[in-house]
Amino acid sequence: MTQNIYDNAEFFAGYSQLGRSVGGLAAAAEWPALWAMLPEMRGLTVVDLGCGFGWFCRWAREQGATQVLGLDVSENMLGRARAETSDTAIVYERADMERLVLPATTFDLAYSSLVLHYVADLGRLFAEVRRGLAPGGAFVFSIEHPIYMAPTAPGWSVDATGRKTWPVDRYLVEGPRTTNWLAEGVIKHHRTIGTTINLLIRTGFEIAHVEEFCPTEEQISARPELLEELERPMFLLVAARVSST
Amino acid sequence: MTQNIYDNAEFFAGYSQLGRSVGGLAAAAEWPALWAMLPEMRGLTVVDLGCGFGWFCRWAREQGATQVLGLDVSENMLGRARAETSDTAIVYERADMERLVLPATTFDLAYSSLVLHYVADLGRLFAEVRRGLAPGGAFVFSIEHPIYMAPTAPGWSVDATGRKTWPVDRYLVEGPRTTNWLAEGVIKHHRTIGTTINLLIRTGFEIAHVEEFCPTEEQISARPELLEELERPMFLLVAARVSST
Repeated sequence: MTQNIYDNAEFFAGYSQLGRSVGGLAAAAEWPALWAMLPEMRGLTVVDLGCGFGWFCRWAREQGATQVLGLDVSENMLGRARAETSDTAIVYERADMERLVLPATTFDLAYSSLVLHYVADLGRLFAEVRRGLAPGGAFVFSIEHPIYMAPTAPGWSVDATGRKTWPVDRYLVEGPRTTNWLAEGVIKHHRTIGTTINLLIRTGFEIAHVEEFCPTEEQISARPELLEELERPMFLLVAARVSST
Repeated sequence: MTQNIYDNAEFFAGYSQLGRSVGGLAAAAEWPALWAMLPEMRGLTVVDLGCGFGWFCRWAREQGATQVLGLDVSENMLGRARAETSDTAIVYERADMERLVLPATTFDLAYSSLVLHYVADLGRLFAEVRRGLAPGGAFVFSIEHPIYMAPTAPGWSVDATGRKTWPVDRYLVEGPRTTNWLAEGVIKHHRTIGTTINLLIRTGFEIAHVEEFCPTEEQISARPELLEELERPMFLLVAARVSST
């Protein structure tokens, strides 16, 4: 199964203190860009793959979604998600993204935020999402950008002239990457943008929008630390829809 | 108009000595991958945007294309292209990619190899290609990869441990990049992969395949200098088709 790092006490303690864990969607710089890629939510049946604390599930209901299924592998996350709502139209269930089984032809929207880079067999998951979507259904997700994930030693470098760069290597060597982020030995799966897009096309999706997240000028004014995000992308945002052909 | 660097004597002399200028398609490492993305050529009407010496135009005819139009802004390139064939089904014409006008609904395939990064207004060009393609037509191109093009100072860096990296900066700052490749002041236009894909979708294309070129094991065995290409991608290969919706 997927490495369940969110049930590691050290990792979970660290994760719970991230800005986006405390402040929810509004604290995630990429959220406005991802929101712009979402369909109008009113009347939709929605599944959230890796729902975490349930921020998106609750937002979807506020926006008028009819039914929301939040899936996560972490009991820690699901526990807090369940505690934060009494809305019976939101159902939280435990699910391993490597073995996900969805009811067929059910959802109008599948959503996933920063989870898919933990999945080893992405083709299997995409096919299952495709099977679970109704005709015309949308799949919108964010994933760590491969430039961010590829390097042997991901991080900033400052050259002799003071220029800050992100040294890339192994970009075309796909496969696991082990990092120490909040805990030791967190395993992520590096793939090129091309591989992710081609997996979607091959499993029956049509590409609608691809965005390498860039903070807006307004965001940088409000949070100057975002300026460095212009140097290299951290997040890849993708919108696809069930292919009509 | 597009900077016509190929009619700069210094640039043209250097370019004429590149492996791919002497050896043609077979000398371009990315050619087999690009070929695999092309439709069966028999019976097709083809346009090559930036045909250079005409290697692809002649190959298309050998593969059974019915008519081939080769377009280039460089008189140097067109002169040599014309001199190398007596095939009347290949027509070479001078064209500036910034102002291209194609006959409507005419071509089954538009092809372009390593030219589009010289084009400032790519949306205009994509719309014109779309207009020139017949229903079901394909658009297959290679372009310099944005990782390759983005940095202030593109090139390899070797860190203290001997690790070779490609330091990236300004990835999300789109716009012109001036490099000294074969001549001083060659202007290229940096865009993210997302921008290129979204421009295609917005101008009426459906994405069929996206590949960040990676040499095969066989290619690396035959040409060990290709091993470093695994560290960062040099070429982005894209196949799109006229959208049916």
